[in-house]
Amino acid sequence: MTNLSNTSNQQGTSPMPFGRYTPFVPVDVPDRTWPTRKVDKAPRWLSTDLRDGNQALIDPMTPARKLTMFELLVKMGYKEIEVGFPSASQTDFDFVRKLVEEDRIPDDVQISVLTQAREDLIERTVDSLVGAPRATIHLYNATAPLFQRVVFNVTPDECRNIAVRGTEMVMKYAEERLGPIVGSQDFGYQYSPEIFTQSDTDFALSVCEAVSDVWQPEAGREIILNLPATVEMSTPNTYADQIEYFGRGLTRREHSAISLHPHNDRGTAVAATELALMAGADRVEGCLFGHGERTGNVDLVTLGMNLFSQGIDPQVDFSDIDEVRRTVEYCTNLPVHPRHPYAGDLVYTAFSGSHQDAIKKGLEDLDKKAAALGVPVGELPWEAPYLPIDPKDVGRTYEAVIRVNSQSGKGGVAYVLKSEHKLDLPRRAQIEFSRVVQQHTDTEGGEITPEEIWSVFRAEYLDRETPLKLNSVHTSSAAGEKDQLTVGVYVHGERHELSGQGNGPIAAFVDAIAAVGHDVRVLDYAEHALSAGGDAIAAAYVECAVSSDSGDKVLWGVGLDANIVTASLKAVISAVNRA
Amino acid sequence: MTNLSNTSNQQGTSPMPFGRYTPFVPVDVPDRTWPTRKVDKAPRWLSTDLRDGNQALIDPMTPARKLTMFELLVKMGYKEIEVGFPSASQTDFDFVRKLVEEDRIPDDVQISVLTQAREDLIERTVDSLVGAPRATIHLYNATAPLFQRVVFNVTPDECRNIAVRGTEMVMKYAEERLGPIVGSQDFGYQYSPEIFTQSDTDFALSVCEAVSDVWQPEAGREIILNLPATVEMSTPNTYADQIEYFGRGLTRREHSAISLHPHNDRGTAVAATELALMAGADRVEGCLFGHGERTGNVDLVTLGMNLFSQGIDPQVDFSDIDEVRRTVEYCTNLPVHPRHPYAGDLVYTAFSGSHQDAIKKGLEDLDKKAAALGVPVGELPWEAPYLPIDPKDVGRTYEAVIRVNSQSGKGGVAYVLKSEHKLDLPRRAQIEFSRVVQQHTDTEGGEITPEEIWSVFRAEYLDRETPLKLNSVHTSSAAGEKDQLTVGVYVHGERHELSGQGNGPIAAFVDAIAAVGHDVRVLDYAEHALSAGGDAIAAAYVECAVSSDSGDKVLWGVGLDANIVTASLKAVISAVNRA
Repeated sequence: MTNLSNTSNQQGTSPMPFGRYTPFVPVDVPDRTWPTRKVDKAPRWLSTDLRDGNQALIDPMTPARKLTMFELLVKMGYKEIEVGFPSASQTDFDFVRKLVEEDRIPDDVQISVLTQAREDLIERTVDSLVGAPRATIHLYNATAPLFQRVVFNVTPDECRNIAVRGTEMVMKYAEERLGPIVGSQDFGYQYSPEIFTQSDTDFALSVCEAVSDVWQPEAGREIILNLPATVEMSTPNTYADQIEYFGRGLTRREHSAISLHPHNDRGTAVAATELALMAGADRVEGCLFGHGERTGNVDLVTLGMNLFSQGIDPQVDFSDIDEVRRTVEYCTNLPVHPRHPYAGDLVYTAFSGSHQDAIKKGLEDLDKKAAALGVPVGELPWEAPYLPIDPKDVGRTYEAVIRVNSQSGKGGVAYVLKSEHKLDLPRRAQIEFSRVVQQHTDTEGGEITPEEIWSVFRAEYLDRETPLKLNSVHTSSAAGEKDQLTVGVYVHGERHELSGQGNGPIAAFVDAIAAVGHDVRVLDYAEHALSAGGDAIAAAYVECAVSSDSGDKVLWGVGLDANIVTASLKAVISAVNRA
Repeated sequence: MTNLSNTSNQQGTSPMPFGRYTPFVPVDVPDRTWPTRKVDKAPRWLSTDLRDGNQALIDPMTPARKLTMFELLVKMGYKEIEVGFPSASQTDFDFVRKLVEEDRIPDDVQISVLTQAREDLIERTVDSLVGAPRATIHLYNATAPLFQRVVFNVTPDECRNIAVRGTEMVMKYAEERLGPIVGSQDFGYQYSPEIFTQSDTDFALSVCEAVSDVWQPEAGREIILNLPATVEMSTPNTYADQIEYFGRGLTRREHSAISLHPHNDRGTAVAATELALMAGADRVEGCLFGHGERTGNVDLVTLGMNLFSQGIDPQVDFSDIDEVRRTVEYCTNLPVHPRHPYAGDLVYTAFSGSHQDAIKKGLEDLDKKAAALGVPVGELPWEAPYLPIDPKDVGRTYEAVIRVNSQSGKGGVAYVLKSEHKLDLPRRAQIEFSRVVQQHTDTEGGEITPEEIWSVFRAEYLDRETPLKLNSVHTSSAAGEKDQLTVGVYVHGERHELSGQGNGPIAAFVDAIAAVGHDVRVLDYAEHALSAGGDAIAAAYVECAVSSDSGDKVLWGVGLDANIVTASLKAVISAVNRA
């Protein structure tokens, strides 16, 4: 780089103490294959909204809100749902009991519960599940060196042993108290080497192998090995490397589900998940809209919709994304950001004029194609500028959120007039009116609503009554003769009867008003009906050069009337009155 | 996968019309090198908060807010700032004039302005810069096939020609009107093949080459080639592949800055930027907290802080991140989400008991290490559970945001008592009190503030006055004899004078109150001062087995007093009263 590098890269002293931080050392996988792969099907999803999500709320969910969340998740199609941490909270314990005792777990849904690897906690966890039709117990302990040293004061061997003994105790208590499901596919087991991303990958793998030695996965007896990015440590490719490395080293791979549990500390949890799926993971744990400790768990909505936008069945129903959002906002008491992918208030909104113009053309092009093929637009491959998906596929619209502000050009304004009022302004008229709107927004500031656009349009083109106002029109035409026209016109409020002739009523009208001092040349003309049928209103657009003492003024006039002649004369008057 | 794949992957009909969407076809770079690379220095940053950010606000910034934003960016250390789209809005034009005429552009800051490739717009854009000490003109046109076909109706050759002629016109008008800076390093040129991600990479490259042929970059005459992910199309690795491919094919590479302009439609803009930097890009355009069209531009704060957390100088000052956040919220009228990386309200908050406990131990460990080495904690490499950076480095604290709810265990509660009230509860006392708090939160629901924790603590341990209340204490001890103690005690409000003896005042007190029917055994004992100095208050913690008709009850009592003896007797009374 040449001229600018001097200014931007030669800072002597930094205000930021970056020297305190040690770069992450990734696992070395020079022969990685994930960058050449693609995600081509949905992973298994686990929602931890009721566990990791709930535990990180300022206001944890009440039992009623928990149930609302559970029912939303079921309705959306999530088949694996972590419902709580029953040994850590009476509320969670009671909620699991409620689901079991009130028989609220659908046949195709597997609930799971989290526990630490301590006997008393495992016992209580198992107790929360007594009578459940199917369930997974999820045991974790920390395998990261910092945690072994500072938090638990254990050696690596002791750490591995905690996981092994925990697994044995889960099996023991489950056999004792969950007889009806234990030994069948209805009873699942999941182990997490906590802070996998901060652990030595080989060590985490050795702990998982030791746990698998106890559980003995085989056909019909899967083990879920969940590898949490409890704290996101580095660029997302490093997580994918860890996952590919882990998958290669794992024995009994075919009976193990490699599961991801990414957090979003570096803002790259979605990416880390996608790359790790390319690296071979089978399953993803996350929360709707990314709730969870600190920056949150990975967002299941964005992940699912990202698959959808690539033509892949997300296996989850996002067709009413606002309903999902409202419910989650209700349950969590936290907002979804206006720029949140796929669901935020502003994400199907185009503010800039060039974007609006492009989107308008793109949607029209799709409509045309569909009409030509005689199919609904929904059956065509989606392709529109700036809109990665059709907002209608998630129950949203482009129209409803179009906004016009001082940055918007003709496209947005034209789109509003077309979609809300059926007015299809000629291109130069669009440019002219967008300047009128822009003057308005430059003066008033802020956004202008479709209603305000319409009111500016009416005031500018339709409602002016001086100097001219049309009262009555009589025309007569005969083959081979010039058209004759007589009009009743108010000039500054005073009634005049004027006559003129010309090649058509507009020319005759221009001729007529010359008598009261208005020198007008018509440059362009367009007219269309606002709707089908004989009683339709017509819209006429006339571009005129209106003479005055200071020279010609070129401008548009617009007229609306049930009578197409009257509409065009009104358009000429609109131009004269604007001049 | 075994048991669960049946339920989750055999959905017959999907509610989502995923068949409408065509998977993105990435450029083929089988010999890509970026996955083995690391980002090891900050890129050049360009803030487009005043252009792309501003144009996508519901309420675009007033001139005063624009100036506030500009000054914030300068103060933070951004050296390249896109200040507007002067040909598209009078407000933007006027703002550029204001910066120039009021001499507000610091010597080390390069402003830039965006323009479309039309002669009248280029002329107006150049006019906005007359008198500027230095500036970059940024020209764009759309190279994506959809835009060529549907929006502009041009052939690829015509599209390339628009870029070439636009560049020529920029040079022509700049030479005419920006004489003093043209030809020097103070005048910069930037070209963007719009929707680079949706363009054929070879075609975008050919347009950039044609533009460079006109501009003729050389030493001291850089060209910035900005490659926008105007719409994020696929997983972030595909953008990195495009960037690596583009960089390999580009001639005059050493005089060209490859610039990124990512948007966040798929929630992976930060990742795409990081991987594309690994792929060789030099420069990043984005906005603070990710404002910009739809889902926003890439977030410059997260990108910079991600570098910081890896020990790399971000070249930007985030040391008062709340001030940055407040200013941006003021200027944009949009909130920063509570879970926004590094800056959200909740991101240095741990809710779960195990997280709180681990963080507490981690911070104590750092303190100990620092004390042992006789250095400030800030000079040690940062390492703490669940906190990727020290919140203090961005002007935040862990303490200020700790929250305790029904999910929290002893760690959080203990931390609040320690940090807010200097009470260092013994471990078993922590467990006991955390259960008391949890009962409270399970009943009341919601979060419990440090004030509420303190009030629960007082009510539970300090304020009980029945059955016993201490009034006066007299002790006498002599070598070789048991200690003698006389106390004035209210028993159910009635005053008693009691005497006892034992091995120390606590034993003597236990002996004394046996006379009024209280059978107590002391199991454990701890005491510490709340502050330094002779008049310090002492805190005493006593674990007692208190007998009653229904058997022994083991519980803790706490006493605070300036007198260490009185404090311990109060602690015994606290246990008795709780029993």
